[in-house]
Amino acid sequence: MGRIEERLEQLGLRLPVPFASAGKEFNFRLVKVHCGLAYIAGHGPFDGATPLVQGRVGEDLTVEQGYEAARLTGLAILASLKLELGSLDRVTEWIRAVGYVQAAPGFDQNPLVVNGFSDLIVELWGEAGRHARSAPGQGPSPSNVPIIVDAIAAID
Amino acid sequence: MGRIEERLEQLGLRLPVPFASAGKEFNFRLVKVHCGLAYIAGHGPFDGATPLVQGRVGEDLTVEQGYEAARLTGLAILASLKLELGSLDRVTEWIRAVGYVQAAPGFDQNPLVVNGFSDLIVELWGEAGRHARSAPGQGPSPSNVPIIVDAIAAID
Amino acid sequence: MGRIEERLEQLGLRLPVPFASAGKEFNFRLVKVHCGLAYIAGHGPFDGATPLVQGRVGEDLTVEQGYEAARLTGLAILASLKLELGSLDRVTEWIRAVGYVQAAPGFDQNPLVVNGFSDLIVELWGEAGRHARSAPGQGPSPSNVPIIVDAIAAID
Repeated sequence: MGRIEERLEQLGLRLPVPFASAGKEFNFRLVKVHCGLAYIAGHGPFDGATPLVQGRVGEDLTVEQGYEAARLTGLAILASLKLELGSLDRVTEWIRAVGYVQAAPGFDQNPLVVNGFSDLIVELWGEAGRHARSAPGQGPSPSNVPIIVDAIAAID
Repeated sequence: MGRIEERLEQLGLRLPVPFASAGKEFNFRLVKVHCGLAYIAGHGPFDGATPLVQGRVGEDLTVEQGYEAARLTGLAILASLKLELGSLDRVTEWIRAVGYVQAAPGFDQNPLVVNGFSDLIVELWGEAGRHARSAPGQGPSPSNVPIIVDAIAAID
Repeated sequence: MGRIEERLEQLGLRLPVPFASAGKEFNFRLVKVHCGLAYIAGHGPFDGATPLVQGRVGEDLTVEQGYEAARLTGLAILASLKLELGSLDRVTEWIRAVGYVQAAPGFDQNPLVVNGFSDLIVELWGEAGRHARSAPGQGPSPSNVPIIVDAIAAID
């Protein structure tokens, strides 16, 4: 077992079923590797093809629930990376991420939601996990999930 | 005629007038090439400066019409790439794309819209066309188009 | 004083306090440097942690006020870059930017808003400042600012 997976276990976290294994056909890649960078597709809080959290933050969901959805989104991303790279230890640095937050009108605390993703990555990778980040609001989201995150990571 | 343009012809597809030729002044680049990557600006379904499809998916437009708008967006991107690169054959791989979908409240099938872009690219480039992709919802869009796509492609 | 800072002075522009100095704790990076590229986090029109412009374009704010907010966002980005890089002269080229515009329903002139950012960069860097750009609408934004911009720049 790799170093990152050991930390996941220590934190009591388990990776979901990767979206790719869900029997759904799709014409894009969950992770595209090019010249030492892993470009990660937009992921939401899914277990396989099943959304785990749905709704708008600030209406259907509290900030804390949004944060938890962002953390689950991070785990879904790690599941895709493990599938693509074999081991999460191949990720050496996190470069950037965009967290698109689906929120109710008047909501303005997007960063507190996206922290659920960033905190997870920093818990696992430490300083190498700290990435440039954007937290824009989004319009109606795929599968009505409260957050979508895409990212770029450096790999060896 | 290049290989990709031959395939376009076989598919009965024609590139629109590039946005750059439309006589509009703008201070950004439709394509910025750096270190073997083409960074492609956000494009919509335009022919020159004329929007070809407008409105919100799930209200003014069906999913199928949104898909078609995403396909037209792909053709607008190819027109810009041809103008910048000389030949579309210089694009060796597609790395990532974000499709920002303008939809009505409650719409949740963004990926089915953005497929219009991804399907086109994969029809033309095959496996090398499969890219990491995000399909967030957007707020009110430029020129009221239902979709904006930006992307990164590798070139030789 | 560097060349870019001289131009800023000539233009009568002053950089705000960087967000990083505002005493707020956050787990992401305002700028992440990797392999000659500076990946810039989403910034808004802030002076330190204080938002300078708030509201929705086309409702609370005119297009001109949105443009000015985008320009202030550019200055906030430059403050972060100076903090991270030491000198703005290390930025050799601007590659891409996304300007997420918070606007009222029916607003469709996002590019005129994001021009406030792009014009500033081109005033300072000339042709090397011209970047690929997207101007999607966003949903409810962080701190209710009318625009968030993230970007990638090349550095030496």
